[in-house]
Amino acid sequence: MPATDPQLVPAGDLREGLKALFCAWGVPPDQAATTAEVLVEADLMGIDSHGITLIPLYDELLRSGKVVAAAEITVARAFGAIAVVDGGGGFGQAPAMLAMDLAVDRAEAYGVGTVAVRNSNHYGAAGVYALRAAARGCIGVSTTAVYKPSIVPTFGRVPRLGTNPIAFAAPGQANPPFLLDMATSTIAIGKLKLAVREGKRLPEGWALNREGRPQTNPEAALADRLMTPLGGSRAMGGHKGYGLAAMVEVLSTLLGGAAYAPLRPPEAERFDVGHFCLALHPEAFREAGAFEADLDAFVEMLRATPPVDPLEPVLVPGDPEHAARERRLCDGIPVPASLLDTVRSIARHWSVDFLPTSTPAG
Amino acid sequence: MPATDPQLVPAGDLREGLKALFCAWGVPPDQAATTAEVLVEADLMGIDSHGITLIPLYDELLRSGKVVAAAEITVARAFGAIAVVDGGGGFGQAPAMLAMDLAVDRAEAYGVGTVAVRNSNHYGAAGVYALRAAARGCIGVSTTAVYKPSIVPTFGRVPRLGTNPIAFAAPGQANPPFLLDMATSTIAIGKLKLAVREGKRLPEGWALNREGRPQTNPEAALADRLMTPLGGSRAMGGHKGYGLAAMVEVLSTLLGGAAYAPLRPPEAERFDVGHFCLALHPEAFREAGAFEADLDAFVEMLRATPPVDPLEPVLVPGDPEHAARERRLCDGIPVPASLLDTVRSIARHWSVDFLPTSTPAG
Repeated sequence: MPATDPQLVPAGDLREGLKALFCAWGVPPDQAATTAEVLVEADLMGIDSHGITLIPLYDELLRSGKVVAAAEITVARAFGAIAVVDGGGGFGQAPAMLAMDLAVDRAEAYGVGTVAVRNSNHYGAAGVYALRAAARGCIGVSTTAVYKPSIVPTFGRVPRLGTNPIAFAAPGQANPPFLLDMATSTIAIGKLKLAVREGKRLPEGWALNREGRPQTNPEAALADRLMTPLGGSRAMGGHKGYGLAAMVEVLSTLLGGAAYAPLRPPEAERFDVGHFCLALHPEAFREAGAFEADLDAFVEMLRATPPVDPLEPVLVPGDPEHAARERRLCDGIPVPASLLDTVRSIARHWSVDFLPTSTPAG
Repeated sequence: MPATDPQLVPAGDLREGLKALFCAWGVPPDQAATTAEVLVEADLMGIDSHGITLIPLYDELLRSGKVVAAAEITVARAFGAIAVVDGGGGFGQAPAMLAMDLAVDRAEAYGVGTVAVRNSNHYGAAGVYALRAAARGCIGVSTTAVYKPSIVPTFGRVPRLGTNPIAFAAPGQANPPFLLDMATSTIAIGKLKLAVREGKRLPEGWALNREGRPQTNPEAALADRLMTPLGGSRAMGGHKGYGLAAMVEVLSTLLGGAAYAPLRPPEAERFDVGHFCLALHPEAFREAGAFEADLDAFVEMLRATPPVDPLEPVLVPGDPEHAARERRLCDGIPVPASLLDTVRSIARHWSVDFLPTSTPAG
């Protein structure tokens, strides 16, 4: 079988394998478990750009010294319904999950809770944290800054903001949570990679060239990573996507005192990435169950929207993720064989026997 | 001079004139003052679609009985750092401003405050409420639902969400507040009206026809009001704008128990529009002044982004609004003479001598 065929890996095995690798890197076991869980949840939900595929990048970040393996996570500040978590320079998953749990605790006590994280790093898929809040009965919002800018402000030709995602989840009763998980760029970097693989030109509006004009060559776009904000051009509302990306930066970076990447001193030892989370407890606002029942009716009305094409029904944000999760929990997570090989060779270097068995995808 | 020439009206005169009209309608004086202030602030900031131009609509809403003039605004629920305000079926400005003030009070006490408003109506420009929070030293978020759906979900051909705006403001020190104030549709309805006036075809992606295909005829687009979500088509990220519009609906409508328009019974006496506001007190998260100083550095770095065209510099969200406000505070607010005539004739009906003097624009 060719090495690019995907292998199907059971989620539990992947979780254990990644946890073992993180422990070998020196990540404390509880943090290793959280980091593995967040990556596997992304893979389960079909967000393949934020699961096991990140391991080579994470390995590189550790080797470069930019990320601390044995990070000490602390609550640097606590006041009323808010807190600030210091990630200790480690991977972002454990401090971000702690932050959301603290926000939900506060929402239970005060109706709303907000926690900012500073001194952190890449934290995987934003949606996983928002869903944590929903699993605990709250509306959850999670945003993060990114250590490297890629979004070009409207009228500009140099990147000044990361792909700064916004995730929002809200619990239903009969329905799985509403889940919006979006980068504030027009498209994810992964779509450029796909276009390169498929040898396709890019539509105008996805990316820019160094003169700030539309870039339609996928190789050049992937090399330069000059992404348009959601909306693309000014005429199509690109200034709104730029504004949303900037809003995410204010919440994720400035509020908690993390580093805004373009102003970070080049000699800085750490990236000092920031995250933001917010939890709202519907029971504080309404009688128990009223919000969740209304959410069900709301998403069912959206799904019942008459479609343009009966074969392409209207979806609710989160539908594709929930469907993928159900399927992959059953069938396993498809991982390209070449990626598995790469991760295995990283693991071998750390004397970890990573995923000794896996099944080729049928 | 032709009747379409704009007249320049001093902001103070417009505020007093509108307040007098609202009082004549039966709006209690304190609510009338707030409603007038919010409309005039929109006009000052150049958001002409949300100022005096709303008076004919508001008159119609009152006459139809959909809006209560002498509304009783109450705090229906208060718990920890949250509250729910009942707008009493009146115009949205007074309950929304009260809600933001209550949210800021809570943010001062708990670091964060959230207030939902139900049983309300059209509330004007979302940015005015976010700026109120910023004027009081807080980050402010304001969102609202709309009584009539116009955004068509991705893959659909029927509207299911209002233009559901998001406003976000954050205070600086040397700089005026960062201000994002955006509809989650690709463009505002006002741009359709402009295209009709100018006799121009619409770019593909602004609006849809009844089959869900791009509508480029401006008259038809204005009649049908089938707006695309920010991003436009699926390929350009329209599902993200749809997700944002749905998020705004969850926060504005479902959280506080207002009515989701497509599920509102046709015989309902009121629209029961909902709003949402959030305030964050930066001093709870960081030392006093640290956030505002970082905000200054952030917006200055954004403005210093190398532009594509040196004559078209990169702006920060809020720059056009602040510039318009400074100019119009000085020169007066340009109001089309035909609109002034219409408002005057409405006022005459209520025995109000509206704006006896105004200056033709030079």
